[in-house]
Amino acid sequence: MTFRFELIHTSTTSKARIGKIYTPHGIIDTPNFVGVGTNGTIKALDNQAVHEIGLQLMFCNTYHLLLQPGTSIVKQAGGLHSFINRSLPIITDSGGFQVFSLAYGSIADELKGKGTKKQAGHVLKISEEGVIFRSYRDGQKVLLTPESSIEAQKDLGADIIIPLDELPPYHIEKNALEASLARTHRWEERSLHTHLKNPNNQAIYAVIHGGIDAILREKSCCYLTKLPFDGFAIGGSMGRTKQEMFEVLRSTMSHLPLEKPNHLLGIGDLTSIEMCVPMGIDTFDSSYPTRAARHGILLTQEGHVKIGRNSHAHMFSPPEKNCSCSTCTRFSLAYLHHLFKAKEATCMILATIHNLHFMVQLMQNYRTKILHNDI
Amino acid sequence: MTFRFELIHTSTTSKARIGKIYTPHGIIDTPNFVGVGTNGTIKALDNQAVHEIGLQLMFCNTYHLLLQPGTSIVKQAGGLHSFINRSLPIITDSGGFQVFSLAYGSIADELKGKGTKKQAGHVLKISEEGVIFRSYRDGQKVLLTPESSIEAQKDLGADIIIPLDELPPYHIEKNALEASLARTHRWEERSLHTHLKNPNNQAIYAVIHGGIDAILREKSCCYLTKLPFDGFAIGGSMGRTKQEMFEVLRSTMSHLPLEKPNHLLGIGDLTSIEMCVPMGIDTFDSSYPTRAARHGILLTQEGHVKIGRNSHAHMFSPPEKNCSCSTCTRFSLAYLHHLFKAKEATCMILATIHNLHFMVQLMQNYRTKILHNDI
Repeated sequence: MTFRFELIHTSTTSKARIGKIYTPHGIIDTPNFVGVGTNGTIKALDNQAVHEIGLQLMFCNTYHLLLQPGTSIVKQAGGLHSFINRSLPIITDSGGFQVFSLAYGSIADELKGKGTKKQAGHVLKISEEGVIFRSYRDGQKVLLTPESSIEAQKDLGADIIIPLDELPPYHIEKNALEASLARTHRWEERSLHTHLKNPNNQAIYAVIHGGIDAILREKSCCYLTKLPFDGFAIGGSMGRTKQEMFEVLRSTMSHLPLEKPNHLLGIGDLTSIEMCVPMGIDTFDSSYPTRAARHGILLTQEGHVKIGRNSHAHMFSPPEKNCSCSTCTRFSLAYLHHLFKAKEATCMILATIHNLHFMVQLMQNYRTKILHNDI
Repeated sequence: MTFRFELIHTSTTSKARIGKIYTPHGIIDTPNFVGVGTNGTIKALDNQAVHEIGLQLMFCNTYHLLLQPGTSIVKQAGGLHSFINRSLPIITDSGGFQVFSLAYGSIADELKGKGTKKQAGHVLKISEEGVIFRSYRDGQKVLLTPESSIEAQKDLGADIIIPLDELPPYHIEKNALEASLARTHRWEERSLHTHLKNPNNQAIYAVIHGGIDAILREKSCCYLTKLPFDGFAIGGSMGRTKQEMFEVLRSTMSHLPLEKPNHLLGIGDLTSIEMCVPMGIDTFDSSYPTRAARHGILLTQEGHVKIGRNSHAHMFSPPEKNCSCSTCTRFSLAYLHHLFKAKEATCMILATIHNLHFMVQLMQNYRTKILHNDI
């Protein structure tokens, strides 16, 4: 199956839309949540469980896979799908985000999720050619260029790939932001050029930048939508607050073509999804639901449930009423509470299953509502 | 189904035997390996995976469950099978082992597996009544008596329970060992008495003690086999070396009745199983296979495989050739190696599945060999 986006319905009451992204490894119904499997696994699950949950798209990080096990090993294994035994679609990023998120500090970390800092390497040099950083694994210098990022993503063989971009910090002078944006555009164009030499049945999404400057965001859309990208991801700093982010997104979305799919990079908390689905955003990736699970937080229709709360010791009912996930249909909240208190890894497994299932259901519900013009 | 042991065949070439232990939650084919699920879960697995692997008997620790979540909560949940959602047989111990293993130090720790020390509480007082220890969870004093241990095990509702015993250290004067043994016998008799007031469809195994003294072991067998226990576990220090242990076991086994099942407490490494099956030992519990898995060691027909070994980065074949476990049929050793290097919990899950499956198969193979008098 070749990559193709089918727009099925746009709500009559908002810009919310439902569609289907066809990929070589199957269909992604949109809007949808994209689970993060940085190292080629959703943390605390194996791919059979992920498959049963019905997660249609998984996000893997080229930065991590480049340093461990190395993309040549994945290529030898027959590509990422074969290496990790996943039959459903995968998207990889360029590696740029992790390289830059350390160099530029906290706003990006905050927006994209904490914890990258510990794992990231050190940026040694940024030039027109690309970025040199020090591997967090063995201290070696690694040069990441638009070309090498795409080559790495060819080795990985994900259904959707992403060009190399620079992630400028939130606090940046306008001139510097403009210069960064211009270079990012050149990098993305070089990435596209490399990709088109060997499309390999992969799709490539551009990444729209421009920080919180509406004019620059428009400029970025204008530049990148003229190039034959298959879809558009929205990246970069989008402000300190959710409100600021929503404003950036609203104006950015108005400059993206309706006939191509779009993706919001690294954002997938429930409030953001609720605000962004009506803007017409198609896919959201975030490690939040799985990270929350590992920290003992269940996402439910009634809000967050802290597994460790003492009153849950006696809750012999399922963690979430009427939930059809394999955790809720088999185990009580009291048992999860016990496993959490006893520091058993099994708790992380069961909570991750529930939270991913919750996200899959949540997005299914959004699609149903959009179909009925209720959003 | 009421508890019953059926001796099916004794090898013509050794004392190895195959049998079936019938319990309220199903059959345990013997000889067999008993997986350790201290806190009511096999570490890093959920019970669906354990069920699929075919582990027939699971060992849960009363000491841990007493302190967290408390046996009254398990009782309210309808017992341990219901609380942890396991439909197959469970055995619980008295709690004594964990209480004493801290007080008396390293030989026991070494024999029974490392790591208990950190979790154990402090023994404050041992008397005829029982043992007072300090909870490692909240510092509270807890009195464990033969009666309270059995009551706790009634709340848990395992298929097989164990009377309270004292675990004397390896380095002990003969007089002190004799005194400890005599008290242990009185404790076990009180435990049995408490059990028989409310059998609750549970079976109770005595624990044979006597340290490395063959005469005392015989005395222990003599005393305990006269009481209406349903089976016999062999516990206590059995020496510094495997050779010493095998000698203790050989002489002890000759004093146990053939018509009742026996269990070797806390020992389940491959060498010990190989040596003990021909002595007629029926069941072995050990956390070794699951702990090894979490530390990146796979048990295979060809010996131990260290997942982290660099040369495994390129091994795109299954972790073990011809293994039918759900890890080996789905993933390569290279993928496990990658997950291990990336410190992904998924590696522990997949390795635990393999090692438990290996133990289940190993014991199946022993049973087949015994049936053909090849052992």
